[in-house]
Amino acid sequence: MSMIVNRRDVDFYLDEMFDLSTLLKADRYREHDRESITAILDLCQSMAEEEFLPCAAELDENEPLFTDGKAITPQVLKDCLKKFVEAGLPTATFDQDLGGMQLPVMVANFMQGIFQAANAPAVGYVFLTSSTAHMLQACGSETLRQRYLPPLIEGRWFGTMCLSEPHAGSSLSDIRCMAEPVGDGSYKLTGTKMWISGGEQDISENIVHMVLARTPDAPPGVKGISLFLVPKIRVEEDGSPGEPNNIALAGLNHKMGQRGTTNTLLNFGEGGDCLGYLVGAENEGLKNMFHMMNEARIGVGMLATMSGLAGYLYSLDYARNRPQGRHPGDKDPNSDMLPIIEHADIRRLLMEQKVAVEGSLALLTYCSQLVDQQLTSEDSQTSQRLTLLLELLTPIAKSWPSEYTLEANKHAIQILGGYGYTREYPVERLYRDNRLNPIHEGSHGIHGLDLLGRKVNLAGGATLAIFEEKMQPALDAASGNETLAEMGESLSDIWQLAKRTIETVNQEPDPVTRLASATPFLDAFGHLVIAWLWLRQALIAHEALQSGAQADTDFYEGKVAACHFFYRYHLPQTAEKLRYVGSQDRSVLDAQASWFTGA
Amino acid sequence: MSMIVNRRDVDFYLDEMFDLSTLLKADRYREHDRESITAILDLCQSMAEEEFLPCAAELDENEPLFTDGKAITPQVLKDCLKKFVEAGLPTATFDQDLGGMQLPVMVANFMQGIFQAANAPAVGYVFLTSSTAHMLQACGSETLRQRYLPPLIEGRWFGTMCLSEPHAGSSLSDIRCMAEPVGDGSYKLTGTKMWISGGEQDISENIVHMVLARTPDAPPGVKGISLFLVPKIRVEEDGSPGEPNNIALAGLNHKMGQRGTTNTLLNFGEGGDCLGYLVGAENEGLKNMFHMMNEARIGVGMLATMSGLAGYLYSLDYARNRPQGRHPGDKDPNSDMLPIIEHADIRRLLMEQKVAVEGSLALLTYCSQLVDQQLTSEDSQTSQRLTLLLELLTPIAKSWPSEYTLEANKHAIQILGGYGYTREYPVERLYRDNRLNPIHEGSHGIHGLDLLGRKVNLAGGATLAIFEEKMQPALDAASGNETLAEMGESLSDIWQLAKRTIETVNQEPDPVTRLASATPFLDAFGHLVIAWLWLRQALIAHEALQSGAQADTDFYEGKVAACHFFYRYHLPQTAEKLRYVGSQDRSVLDAQASWFTGA
Repeated sequence: MSMIVNRRDVDFYLDEMFDLSTLLKADRYREHDRESITAILDLCQSMAEEEFLPCAAELDENEPLFTDGKAITPQVLKDCLKKFVEAGLPTATFDQDLGGMQLPVMVANFMQGIFQAANAPAVGYVFLTSSTAHMLQACGSETLRQRYLPPLIEGRWFGTMCLSEPHAGSSLSDIRCMAEPVGDGSYKLTGTKMWISGGEQDISENIVHMVLARTPDAPPGVKGISLFLVPKIRVEEDGSPGEPNNIALAGLNHKMGQRGTTNTLLNFGEGGDCLGYLVGAENEGLKNMFHMMNEARIGVGMLATMSGLAGYLYSLDYARNRPQGRHPGDKDPNSDMLPIIEHADIRRLLMEQKVAVEGSLALLTYCSQLVDQQLTSEDSQTSQRLTLLLELLTPIAKSWPSEYTLEANKHAIQILGGYGYTREYPVERLYRDNRLNPIHEGSHGIHGLDLLGRKVNLAGGATLAIFEEKMQPALDAASGNETLAEMGESLSDIWQLAKRTIETVNQEPDPVTRLASATPFLDAFGHLVIAWLWLRQALIAHEALQSGAQADTDFYEGKVAACHFFYRYHLPQTAEKLRYVGSQDRSVLDAQASWFTGA
Repeated sequence: MSMIVNRRDVDFYLDEMFDLSTLLKADRYREHDRESITAILDLCQSMAEEEFLPCAAELDENEPLFTDGKAITPQVLKDCLKKFVEAGLPTATFDQDLGGMQLPVMVANFMQGIFQAANAPAVGYVFLTSSTAHMLQACGSETLRQRYLPPLIEGRWFGTMCLSEPHAGSSLSDIRCMAEPVGDGSYKLTGTKMWISGGEQDISENIVHMVLARTPDAPPGVKGISLFLVPKIRVEEDGSPGEPNNIALAGLNHKMGQRGTTNTLLNFGEGGDCLGYLVGAENEGLKNMFHMMNEARIGVGMLATMSGLAGYLYSLDYARNRPQGRHPGDKDPNSDMLPIIEHADIRRLLMEQKVAVEGSLALLTYCSQLVDQQLTSEDSQTSQRLTLLLELLTPIAKSWPSEYTLEANKHAIQILGGYGYTREYPVERLYRDNRLNPIHEGSHGIHGLDLLGRKVNLAGGATLAIFEEKMQPALDAASGNETLAEMGESLSDIWQLAKRTIETVNQEPDPVTRLASATPFLDAFGHLVIAWLWLRQALIAHEALQSGAQADTDFYEGKVAACHFFYRYHLPQTAEKLRYVGSQDRSVLDAQASWFTGA
């Protein structure tokens, strides 16, 4: 049993749930077939298991060091990433004419995920680089693309995104980093950026920073933010390395987890000119950065999910093999101890992990499928609808897995008991790693405001209508199904409740009051989406069981049982959360700063 | 503002909620008055803030080392504990005729808590020692008491409890450690103990282990377990140190948190005879150990709560001082940024911490009050009722704070954002420390079985009847109160639901099925108890507000608001959890080991 991926489950999403075969008929993906995709997933799995997984604990215990203004990373990290680059894996999603593999995003998502499950901090560098390159491809000038894209796609140079500053994390409208035009089309960057993952390292030949900054006469707020490409080492016209570009590493942050990825405080323009190049138009920086951020947000959802999956698989294996205790009622101390998976509470802890992890996997694969459909659609109306649906789902795809697979990792520790609390076992590390995910790429609070304040009402509410349409086939299928009809009705009920809740909230004129419970709404709406995706999984599994798929009976029974558990245990609580949002309770909003401790 | 304790809130529990003044009239506590108690809490607070808090991060970063078979702890830990011992603080709860301060348990609980909030791993050694001494006092022979109690009470020697073995954590009936009688009343101990906190260290002059082991002809299972006192260094009749007692330190566990407390693997009788002395009668070891465990369980609840409180206070202070962003709807980027406490989601994260932490504090102070009432009761029937009530509440007092103040620490990290995820700030350490609490002293799973399988039906259900009686005055008071009547009704409803749930569960003859949802029941019943205690807090606060207690208006408003939030947001979800338990859903129980991944 692999400790990082359940390939049977991957096949379920690709083949049974999200219809890879149809996607492979599209012109864009005609170079690939199911066998070649299996082969590349095999390659990823073996490299992840043989190279990345064995050094994950070592990388955690030996975090990068800040020495003489440099970030020194462990050799084992450099070795792993060298193999990853040499195998050509950074090129997965790029177009063939750029030297890429041009793989379906749905497949690339699992390739990425397999490495994230094995050693998330190690591969953080390369997946950030992919996002950087995608943004450059979409928004950069031809000159910038020609000079910077090839080494990024090949993985010789790494990329970063530089948004936050020490005084402005969530509040991008307050960033102060400045970019003054030099006159030759380039800009001089000055200012400090904080929380920059991979902002300095000794792994790649160069680093390409994507930096948000203001030009001298820019309007205040988000409307005055521009995006700049700023290399660590300047690049000559022929692509060869030039002078250092005066980006000083002011310090490394020492994190609870994700320790293998450097996290940096950078001073741009310290000790000399720091040159940057505009990406897209002036003052359109935030819009362009969102190209990267939307991808990164789904990437964070996947990162969380794979930490959850690794903990699930490890604790499942442990539960099957660790003997301890007997059933309640068995008073014979001479009877054999049971493997702990036989205890109801251990099963519950496993089932909680299963519903969180496989619910998240379904959601993230679904989002990938939507991106693939966008990339292969030739019909602008379809494409627009896909964009709207992705807009609606992105805050959920980022936040729900971040919250509930962290919870899953907590359960994995619980199954291992004292062992799980020690660094000799991987589950506590996964839990520490995963705690980052509700924070970066927009905290829960930010995504709640985005969902309830914007996304559910986008295009006059078209987002909700499109989602409803997508949900309908599962509701129809369930209604004729003896086993699943009750769940279909529950989903239908909670969907009506969600819509009524949104209507109620929309009627409130004061924006502060209207959005006061945006985070509980994000949480509840996430459960609703996951409930739909679990029903879809159960419908497929139920049909397979009916048609007598003997070989996979256990697999399908597990899907149906997990769906039942989610609907019976979690969904009723979700309904109460929605009712709370709809009640527009003010007990939190009205609590003054001085009320918390009375002083 | 203190980062470890809100003294106004402590006074609220002692004076307004749990009636310390009446307790101080009891003969046992007549040496103390309210002023002397304030003075000793002042002393604890200043020592905790000046000595223990400043080195908490250092102790976390420099965990004890395993060198040449010894555990080497940092000097700063030794220095702190030396001051604690020199101030006479280990004697807090012991009788005056043993040289103790004979303080009310309710007060001692806060003394302990203040140090736990500052630096839990540092004081773990001394509070474990208190428990050891209490058990020895209750169960040990006069010879053992005379020889071992004074140095334990004075804090010159430290104590441990040795239950678990590598193959048997939760399942004590399977322990293998052996004790063979020597013939002179002593026993030779052999075997291995695992997860022993403070099992080896270089701080105290000696270590007194309380060890569960079997005698040669003992019956199998828990009925054949005896309790032994086993010193690290043998003690001569005059109390002077003798030869080493052949307890080998086989290794230290490397924990996620609580790093300052050594956690050890010990081999008894390695390299020579290891002598132990029976505490209580043969084969009554488990019963005697429970003297220590019940105290330790409430201690773990307090430990969790104070990690929660420290995170709450730190994040509250941060939220009041960190400017970031503006209200939704405020489109002017030139307006000042708000302190983040003005954002609804930050208030929610603070309110969640408040309801968890102050709910837990109320519960643990209540349990302490019950112990004090036992210690001062001269009426055996009253005493028996108090014992039954404590039996019912102990699994909750241990588990609910462990779960929900861990959640509170998660919220504290969220408020600090990226900063919260770094080791430069204390909140991630508190979260790591707190993750231990749902595991040790009985995992949630064990306490769930204890509560639903035993405690709710104890003495023919007298436990529930006593609890109901205790709850009634709050229900009565709420019913006549315009602001709180709705909450009283909610509590009454959920109590009826809980009773019906227990009745339904009791009707199931098969014990495995009956207890399948014991952990969700523990969770839900815990919420019910906390809801009752929040209503009591709100009633007191409401009355104070009505009577015009101007100076503390903010404090009392906060209590009422927190109660509202708990009832409106959490309690309806709790009802759904109870309905789930009552439904006797089998989707988890029936899930076979092979269903989880399908292989």
